[in-house]
Amino acid sequence: MDKPVVQYRDGAWVEAMDVIASEYALTIFVNDNELATIVCTPTHMEDLVVGFLASEGIIRRADQIEALNVSRFMGTARVTTKHKVTFNQEFYNKRYIASCCGKGRQSFYFHNDAVTAKHVDDDVHLTAEQVFSVLDAMDGEASLFHETGGVHMAALCRPGELVLARTDIGRHNALDKIYGHVLKAGISLSGTVIAFSGRISSEVLLKVAKIGVGVVVARSAPTALAIDMAEELGITAVGFVRGRSFNVYTHAWRIQR
Amino acid sequence: MDKPVVQYRDGAWVEAMDVIASEYALTIFVNDNELATIVCTPTHMEDLVVGFLASEGIIRRADQIEALNVSRFMGTARVTTKHKVTFNQEFYNKRYIASCCGKGRQSFYFHNDAVTAKHVDDDVHLTAEQVFSVLDAMDGEASLFHETGGVHMAALCRPGELVLARTDIGRHNALDKIYGHVLKAGISLSGTVIAFSGRISSEVLLKVAKIGVGVVVARSAPTALAIDMAEELGITAVGFVRGRSFNVYTHAWRIQR
Repeated sequence: MDKPVVQYRDGAWVEAMDVIASEYALTIFVNDNELATIVCTPTHMEDLVVGFLASEGIIRRADQIEALNVSRFMGTARVTTKHKVTFNQEFYNKRYIASCCGKGRQSFYFHNDAVTAKHVDDDVHLTAEQVFSVLDAMDGEASLFHETGGVHMAALCRPGELVLARTDIGRHNALDKIYGHVLKAGISLSGTVIAFSGRISSEVLLKVAKIGVGVVVARSAPTALAIDMAEELGITAVGFVRGRSFNVYTHAWRIQR
Repeated sequence: MDKPVVQYRDGAWVEAMDVIASEYALTIFVNDNELATIVCTPTHMEDLVVGFLASEGIIRRADQIEALNVSRFMGTARVTTKHKVTFNQEFYNKRYIASCCGKGRQSFYFHNDAVTAKHVDDDVHLTAEQVFSVLDAMDGEASLFHETGGVHMAALCRPGELVLARTDIGRHNALDKIYGHVLKAGISLSGTVIAFSGRISSEVLLKVAKIGVGVVVARSAPTALAIDMAEELGITAVGFVRGRSFNVYTHAWRIQR
């Protein structure tokens, strides 16, 4: 979306149009029951819905979905599943609290996520140079990030190769868009790494575990709870990548010295 | 909190301890009714509770609080108010969805926030140099941000002067900590500016309006919805501050050319 702005550039003022990230509300219905509303950047919305349903444990494979219709005009995604799905709306309200950036009950981190977060045994290995190149590849890919400065970015990579990058104003959405694409396209996650533009919170770490990737690399640091979870779930958390430096917080055996 | 990490620094590997941001769950009770649980960085927790209650419209002034006891061990804040407070737990569950970084119903942005978000008429003026100095002052203040790279930062400033800076793993919490301190200390907001380390989302913008400050400055860009709200609420949104450049998205009359 373009908006008028007044730009200051090295002492000069210019009136211009600027690309701005949208906040778009998408309400997901599963078998005609309202499940949740996601505020997102309106790109790759089918992937987003598939990834969201999988990370919430409602589906395990993309072929469990009979039909999926996204209406941009209505702001709805209507999903029909082949199997019977039951969910408790109250439970979901509480879940979302925990999955956000500030408010939640500690117990929900583990109680509900235990269903879908799994221990990751993948033995992908990275050199220090590959840690840097994974983030550089992500930065090079996602133009919306540079244009608007207002979105999160996630990328699925193999050492030396970017598989796909996705952006969203919601940090979890960028990861769900990747998860949905992986499920639909049947991409093997063996040997892959996830690069992430923001802080590795407990919720980001859980999402990486749910997707099933063994390494997460970010410019920012993880939180203490994310480190504890990474330790337990077998995930290598690499953070604070700045210039020619980074920290390995957990499972350092995947990083070659 | 300190955690062991493996550090890579310009080709060399070191085992070291690193300062890590904690995620701490604080459950707020108002007159013995459970209101909400906030995941936060456990600093300035009384300010956080006061700011949270004010931005949720439960109090308007700090002196409406009869007693406030924070137990770090229990993870609880027990608040007694002088006036009768009623809140609907279901309503609050929904609110929190909207206040987070990805999931919410669009309508809640306006419906519930209309109670506390107000039009800001303050006529503070900033030069371009003061825009830069406000962010530089914030960066210089908040050591936890540099140490852990995993927290958000907000600062209340006057042109050329930093009043206070607060950090938190939750973006809204950093702003609530400022709001709570302002209410308790009776600081006048006339002529002040808020600097923020992250993206100006609609929720950040609403929080600035609730606090009642006329200018918000951030390194990242606002979202389209945040720009619309800033326009309507009379707030000058300045973003994308990089090097010697920035953009003014709304109410540019407060920035001197």
